[in-house]
Amino acid sequence: MDPELIDKLVIPGNTKIVFLIMDGLGGLPREEGGLTELESARRPNMNALARVSLCGLLDPVAPGVTPGSGPAHFALFGYDPVKNNIGRGILEGAGIDYPMTDRDLLIRVNFATADGEGRVVDRRAGRIDTETNRRVCAKLQEAVRLGPGIEVFFEPVKEHRALLVLRGDGLEDRIQETDPQKTGVPPLPPAPLSPAAEATSRILEEVVGRAHAALADEPKANTLLLRGYARYRRYPSLRERFLLNPLAVAVYPMYRGIARLLGMTVAGGADTIEKEFALVRENYGTYDFFFLHVKPTDSRGEDGDFEGKVKVIEEVDALLPQLVDLEPDVLVVTGDHSTPAVLASHSWHPVPVILHARTCRPDRVEVFSERSCAAGGLGRMPMVRLMGLALAHAGRLEKFGA
Amino acid sequence: MDPELIDKLVIPGNTKIVFLIMDGLGGLPREEGGLTELESARRPNMNALARVSLCGLLDPVAPGVTPGSGPAHFALFGYDPVKNNIGRGILEGAGIDYPMTDRDLLIRVNFATADGEGRVVDRRAGRIDTETNRRVCAKLQEAVRLGPGIEVFFEPVKEHRALLVLRGDGLEDRIQETDPQKTGVPPLPPAPLSPAAEATSRILEEVVGRAHAALADEPKANTLLLRGYARYRRYPSLRERFLLNPLAVAVYPMYRGIARLLGMTVAGGADTIEKEFALVRENYGTYDFFFLHVKPTDSRGEDGDFEGKVKVIEEVDALLPQLVDLEPDVLVVTGDHSTPAVLASHSWHPVPVILHARTCRPDRVEVFSERSCAAGGLGRMPMVRLMGLALAHAGRLEKFGA
Repeated sequence: MDPELIDKLVIPGNTKIVFLIMDGLGGLPREEGGLTELESARRPNMNALARVSLCGLLDPVAPGVTPGSGPAHFALFGYDPVKNNIGRGILEGAGIDYPMTDRDLLIRVNFATADGEGRVVDRRAGRIDTETNRRVCAKLQEAVRLGPGIEVFFEPVKEHRALLVLRGDGLEDRIQETDPQKTGVPPLPPAPLSPAAEATSRILEEVVGRAHAALADEPKANTLLLRGYARYRRYPSLRERFLLNPLAVAVYPMYRGIARLLGMTVAGGADTIEKEFALVRENYGTYDFFFLHVKPTDSRGEDGDFEGKVKVIEEVDALLPQLVDLEPDVLVVTGDHSTPAVLASHSWHPVPVILHARTCRPDRVEVFSERSCAAGGLGRMPMVRLMGLALAHAGRLEKFGA
Repeated sequence: MDPELIDKLVIPGNTKIVFLIMDGLGGLPREEGGLTELESARRPNMNALARVSLCGLLDPVAPGVTPGSGPAHFALFGYDPVKNNIGRGILEGAGIDYPMTDRDLLIRVNFATADGEGRVVDRRAGRIDTETNRRVCAKLQEAVRLGPGIEVFFEPVKEHRALLVLRGDGLEDRIQETDPQKTGVPPLPPAPLSPAAEATSRILEEVVGRAHAALADEPKANTLLLRGYARYRRYPSLRERFLLNPLAVAVYPMYRGIARLLGMTVAGGADTIEKEFALVRENYGTYDFFFLHVKPTDSRGEDGDFEGKVKVIEEVDALLPQLVDLEPDVLVVTGDHSTPAVLASHSWHPVPVILHARTCRPDRVEVFSERSCAAGGLGRMPMVRLMGLALAHAGRLEKFGA
């Protein structure tokens, strides 16, 4: 079924929908017969909510597929994560919350070290620090100027990584990546991979040439490698698709950037989970869709820190009544994907979900856990379906057909 | 989601995957409130495995759709069973393990009896025995010779059924079937159904004419009816799609043929279930994917022999530790479809599945049965998803998107 069927059924409403997303929520036990992070957490509020809600397991992309943050969040908001697979350059831009325009070609840059003959000897320039990165980007910003009609921006990201933006008309992204993927050879040319990309290729050759000249006196970052070319693509916003007026509350730039790509207003000022909850409460009258993003569940999972992830879930549980007390028409508690601490990485495992609404049909789930959700009323379904369910329970979808 | 998304994510690995497939495993109780064949079987090893694994129910094609062996096995191996629906002629060729080439047009032949005016009086030639079939095929092989560039092969199958293979360039399968589907009328001509099939149609007219002449003195099989034209189609192999080095162990020719169509090496020499398990163990070091096919569950089901099917499941259960002891990274125990003895035929009911791996998240399934699997962690999903899950749990899929 086309996930976009729901777009045709959307009607306006005054109801409120809150998505509490614990990044990387799904987990695994540490030993056979053991409990997952979620199961190990003291979570009276999540359990109480699960008892009076509909629960289930969501597959971010498809069974067996481990998603990156981009596809996982697109699916959460009802965007087909494969059809809308977001280009690396755009995600890099979103990751530093860069204000992209629809004339932009976004490119990830790795600073690297080359020897006297131009051969790459270190593909990460000895992992220069972010301060050096900032200085090098400022130098390039000064040195690389192109003819009329094309603007160039160098934006530092972290360590040896930066973002290169070309802004102009008719830029194409079918260009060969210049990273040779090994040392001892020079960077590849930014050759066109289609005839339409020839003009862009020539511009990039000029950028690379001028950049090399400007970096010649750098001890480490004396060359640059280009990857993940992505022409900016405008996605239909949550307002256009679902008539929602959405607010995103997220501490990490990547998720603020993704929210902005989908037309959400992004709240500022929170640097703790507690402050994020407060921001939702403060802005509750102004918006009707709230995306509250909790990052540390994923960070602790990525660190392999089982206990740390348990503690974050407990912290969120203690704050949950602040959302419940708002009595939103629909309250969703879930994750964007699984990050089991035992794997210390994103994984393909489905994510447990609570969907609370007055119109929820009761199921038999008594606690909020991966194994209880497996027998919940939502069953197992692709995550891209969640938004349609949320809209339906918020009274925002009309009947299909007569 | 496109099942072929996983193809783009596959990475090489040294892990091992074992698929133990009990053909027609799913069943039904004999009376209201009763147990299925699987539930009736003494199966301590399957139950123990289910307790430490992920369980669920798989739909071979879609809810309500009863699959043939071709689509059911294609789905098991991750091939969309509708898009890859295998032509009748090819399945007939696979069924006798015929070595097909990509220049072949495969046609199912039914020998029939015609009267003096050429009208069909028995569409199955009085179900001649297989010995007669062999003799008739040898006679046709001798008598039917065509011009240069086209070879003809007649292969006996069973009773009145045979396989006709035309081998040459540019053969087309858009040809009218010649079986009139009733008696009292002559066979239809092998007329072209598209302009491109005209040359093939003329060749088939010549084949039919020469065959009739050669069969004129046969008491029963004095004519032949052509059905299920299928130009050989090459499927991407499991090696090409998933970088697997697969071994198939199957007693019945049909399943050996299907395995070969998908590029598996087919082990020889087993004529009992016990010997099949031994073959997997003997070859365990050489391959990384094992398809162990157990036929008698389906045969007893087709016979309507409930107790017989229970006994086969018990026999497999007793052998299961031989696979568990190998400690494969992924061990799947399931069927290709259901064959409830009370229906004495394939059915549309979903199939219970055990997926065992170190990275399995526990669910609440304590025994292996159709009803317990309904509340398992895998939930209910299309069978074509199984291969993606197996590859993920074997560490052979990389992350999708950034």
